[in-house]
Amino acid sequence: MTFTQKDIISIRDFSKKDILEILKLAEKMEPIARSMEICQVLEGKLLGNLFYEPSTRTRLSFEAAMQRLGGGVIGFAEAGVSSATKGENLTDTVRIVGEYTDALVIRHNMEGTARFVADEVDVPVINAGDGAGQHPTQTLLDLYTMQRILGKIDDLHVALVGDLKYGRTVHSLAYALGMFGVKMSFISPVELRMPREVLHDLSNSGIYVNETEDINEVLDYVDVLYVTRIQKERFPDPAEYAKIKGAYLINSKLLQGSKAIVMHPLPRVDEISHDVDNSPYGKYFQQAFYGVPVRMAILKKLIK
Amino acid sequence: MTFTQKDIISIRDFSKKDILEILKLAEKMEPIARSMEICQVLEGKLLGNLFYEPSTRTRLSFEAAMQRLGGGVIGFAEAGVSSATKGENLTDTVRIVGEYTDALVIRHNMEGTARFVADEVDVPVINAGDGAGQHPTQTLLDLYTMQRILGKIDDLHVALVGDLKYGRTVHSLAYALGMFGVKMSFISPVELRMPREVLHDLSNSGIYVNETEDINEVLDYVDVLYVTRIQKERFPDPAEYAKIKGAYLINSKLLQGSKAIVMHPLPRVDEISHDVDNSPYGKYFQQAFYGVPVRMAILKKLIK
Amino acid sequence: MTFTQKDIISIRDFSKKDILEILKLAEKMEPIARSMEICQVLEGKLLGNLFYEPSTRTRLSFEAAMQRLGGGVIGFAEAGVSSATKGENLTDTVRIVGEYTDALVIRHNMEGTARFVADEVDVPVINAGDGAGQHPTQTLLDLYTMQRILGKIDDLHVALVGDLKYGRTVHSLAYALGMFGVKMSFISPVELRMPREVLHDLSNSGIYVNETEDINEVLDYVDVLYVTRIQKERFPDPAEYAKIKGAYLINSKLLQGSKAIVMHPLPRVDEISHDVDNSPYGKYFQQAFYGVPVRMAILKKLIK
Repeated sequence: MTFTQKDIISIRDFSKKDILEILKLAEKMEPIARSMEICQVLEGKLLGNLFYEPSTRTRLSFEAAMQRLGGGVIGFAEAGVSSATKGENLTDTVRIVGEYTDALVIRHNMEGTARFVADEVDVPVINAGDGAGQHPTQTLLDLYTMQRILGKIDDLHVALVGDLKYGRTVHSLAYALGMFGVKMSFISPVELRMPREVLHDLSNSGIYVNETEDINEVLDYVDVLYVTRIQKERFPDPAEYAKIKGAYLINSKLLQGSKAIVMHPLPRVDEISHDVDNSPYGKYFQQAFYGVPVRMAILKKLIK
Repeated sequence: MTFTQKDIISIRDFSKKDILEILKLAEKMEPIARSMEICQVLEGKLLGNLFYEPSTRTRLSFEAAMQRLGGGVIGFAEAGVSSATKGENLTDTVRIVGEYTDALVIRHNMEGTARFVADEVDVPVINAGDGAGQHPTQTLLDLYTMQRILGKIDDLHVALVGDLKYGRTVHSLAYALGMFGVKMSFISPVELRMPREVLHDLSNSGIYVNETEDINEVLDYVDVLYVTRIQKERFPDPAEYAKIKGAYLINSKLLQGSKAIVMHPLPRVDEISHDVDNSPYGKYFQQAFYGVPVRMAILKKLIK
Repeated sequence: MTFTQKDIISIRDFSKKDILEILKLAEKMEPIARSMEICQVLEGKLLGNLFYEPSTRTRLSFEAAMQRLGGGVIGFAEAGVSSATKGENLTDTVRIVGEYTDALVIRHNMEGTARFVADEVDVPVINAGDGAGQHPTQTLLDLYTMQRILGKIDDLHVALVGDLKYGRTVHSLAYALGMFGVKMSFISPVELRMPREVLHDLSNSGIYVNETEDINEVLDYVDVLYVTRIQKERFPDPAEYAKIKGAYLINSKLLQGSKAIVMHPLPRVDEISHDVDNSPYGKYFQQAFYGVPVRMAILKKLIK
């Protein structure tokens, strides 16, 4: 066992060996996540779920993960029902909930919050998204999805599609895929290109990266289309947004003949057509499910 | 065992035999619902509770039912804390939560939602009320209440009182009572009469039905007064509403000498006087309790 | 066993013997609260958590306490998601949730609510704060904190600091400390002095009490500084508030040389400096933790 982190804050704290250890354990968790096996390994343990921003998937999948392992959950789903409304500062709240529980999950809109919290409390802290910062369990489940569906991560060719500038998910994922030597194509409008430093970091590590505005260029050879939402607010001109939206719409017709699976961190708005959902291409619901065994593995690793 | 439904969407999907099977199982659940016995039959299972509209009774009784059987619950109590605020569509949310859980309960303000959802997901779906549509577990607990308190359903005479036009509860209940050959009296102001098609359906099935505006006419012989709320918004003229409200107020004085028990789906506002609550007539709190063993029976039947 | 209360409404319902019985049981609960031992003594039981006002600490510590003992929790964290929005009255809601559960915890902004509710329902009711009224489990955990950290309650000298006029916590605590013959110093601005009747009650019982505006007078000899928040709204003149706030600020420099521990019911705003948090003086997070074993003891005593 090489995994020795107290907290899960950033995917950058993981070695490739650490990641593989989590993915391997996640695979053992799958039958429990599907309730084909019963497991009470976290019986008597409590998770504190502190969601200062609403999130269906992440919050509920942590709650599912903890309960599938026999543990309990306390917490809040939005800042409004916490004592934040009485002016209590974040530190006091997390320290107190840390006293009640065996681990904390925190989502907050301010970058750096999870790291700060981890330094304040004794119990393990899991970052469930801190603003423009990190969301490491999303990256782990993305990797797990590729491994489970495609049988491997090494040697894949993954296209990241959409808003590559502001999306925290794609930055973390690109970095992690780099650890596996994965070839990457970055597909985005010019305005939303992957930050130059990410590109340089990957190139310097000897990773193959190409960049284009046209999704059609890569459809013949990529294994994964990892799609993210392009937000209207990024474009001052609605006409420009409409044009771009159309150019990046993923539908069955576009995919015809491609071997790629389509992934998405969800929620989507309309960047993937519903005719992809039940096609052999659409894997984003399965990907969402894989959040449960991956988070089970993490909880099992962290909670003593 | 005749009960083979994957989902619980409408009471119209039930045969009389199906209903009796649920009621029989509910009776076995009662000591567990009262925590006189411990049962872990749904250990390791998870229920997804998706309440797009707030509801104390229905939501909490499903949570109680699931936990009394050793299972866990995830979900949300109002649309605000779901990803609906990020523009995610209903289908995606329910598919994802369906991936995390072994069954879904859904309440939504739009008629037909539960049926639509059931077609989208693999796990069983229970309709906990869809707008003006169905609320089948309410009907089942209504029937169970009659059977437990009066010892039978067949041969009863039940008066449905109040708003019989808009109340979804009374339409479903009337239909179900018809399956048991129950005699029915419909007591309402003219403006809020039972829809003609319900009356015709029942008459065509040979069910005895009478209709009146005056509750006093039936007090001597009915076994059950099933009271529903008359909403102020139904009347353009406040004076008309006030008059009608008075004419349908159930209190101890009115009930004196009657053998009827008083039921109500709750919440009530002021259509039943508080002096009925602890009288031998008032059975609506017991009725609320019966929601737990009935929902336990349903969860036990559906979750594999 | 002398403890025979059905409900926990006010600390005034407790004898000293009752209190000691709870504190003794709380000590047995501690290893379970720290998840060093697993306990399923409330397996199959359900707690109804009815929070008509938000509260992180109290709500979550009750949820933690119940789950650490193997029980489940249902309820709501704010009135908005209950049927209160449909006009349902409090009594109906609590009676119904009482039917679903084995005990109720209630917080409400109206004084007297918990006592009223306890008379309406069969299950045990625990007052988790009713407006300007009582919050007995807070007092019990305050006493437990002193006993665990200082080894005793009798013979201590406790200073109550801050808003002694409006703070319900300090009134209940002063009364309870009186039962243990504890010497008390009341430190507050003149505008926020302890009510005269509390002083007279304590003096008449032979309790040593002194009163001062200057915290420096007591720092040499008190064992506990129990600090409460001074609210800006109490002062018509912002300048006056600023002056008073400064005079009652607890920081490491002020405490230097004192043997006192610092307690606070939390949430604090800025009446205790953060440099006290991790000093040997600061015990308020430990105090928050002690809320769990104390509430476990109470749940264990009440739920049959």
